[in-house]
Amino acid sequence: MDLKSYVRDVADFPKKGVSYKDITPLLLDPEAMELAVKLFMQNLPHTDIDKVVGIESRGFFFATLLAEKLRAGFIPVRKPGKLPHRTHSENYELEYGTDTLEIHEDAIKQGEKVLLHDDVLATGGTAAATCKLIEKCGGEIVQCTFLVELGFLKGAEKLKGYEVSSLLKYT
Amino acid sequence: MDLKSYVRDVADFPKKGVSYKDITPLLLDPEAMELAVKLFMQNLPHTDIDKVVGIESRGFFFATLLAEKLRAGFIPVRKPGKLPHRTHSENYELEYGTDTLEIHEDAIKQGEKVLLHDDVLATGGTAAATCKLIEKCGGEIVQCTFLVELGFLKGAEKLKGYEVSSLLKYT
Repeated sequence: MDLKSYVRDVADFPKKGVSYKDITPLLLDPEAMELAVKLFMQNLPHTDIDKVVGIESRGFFFATLLAEKLRAGFIPVRKPGKLPHRTHSENYELEYGTDTLEIHEDAIKQGEKVLLHDDVLATGGTAAATCKLIEKCGGEIVQCTFLVELGFLKGAEKLKGYEVSSLLKYT
Repeated sequence: MDLKSYVRDVADFPKKGVSYKDITPLLLDPEAMELAVKLFMQNLPHTDIDKVVGIESRGFFFATLLAEKLRAGFIPVRKPGKLPHRTHSENYELEYGTDTLEIHEDAIKQGEKVLLHDDVLATGGTAAATCKLIEKCGGEIVQCTFLVELGFLKGAEKLKGYEVSSLLKYT
């Protein structure tokens, strides 16, 4: 089974000139989903993992599945104003302007081992900001894992010092 | 294990006078997550389910887990402009103004059996709009399932004619 055949290219989305990787056909197929989870698990480092962080909102799709397989807690990292309790915040650069992500301060205990997950590694801004949030909470990042990596955007360079694993790489 | 003890009340969120049900403590506990999934599964009607629809974005947390357990496809219903392919749209009323939800037109085949999931049933506006989206695609809704139901907001009345199941009811 070639998982890339379940990713649909959508031209000019979300804006002209961008070819968007649409993962919804993969989500529609239970066998493709199962294989993706199996491959994520095979690529993990051999260590206990306490928490899985998923980045809003497409990162939630697989992060809960990975948390369940690992018997780990699940933590949503969200856009500003969405998490109701006390949060840490982190700004990151967009092409134009900046954006912010938040995590609940009490989501991670000092020294816990954390897996970061998002659907796509593009420029790496959101993932790098999420790494900072996890570390502000006292967590230790064991891996940053992505379904899709757009290698030509060099996002992995923003995650130097962390282990990065992607199932589907596009160069 | 009392799942309600994993739901945190946050006063005056998102606005003054509202007591918000924060489910993130439940997500942090693998045993509580496992029990919730088990209870969702026990409450399902005895029929095959082809697709599980989760509503953006907190509905995604359990919808993917339920899809995996059912070996069903997972479908995200999202805010406008987020889904890249051709969509059906449905407007629904908010306290002030309206909002819109979208589904990919090709997500459901005619006659497929569909489980709808969201984290919270409040006024029922988003769930009722999602029912219409599923039916526009030709799907048959077998159950609308929620982690939390705020009974005092009478959302179930907007879902008359559908089977509604909630794990944690607040009256």
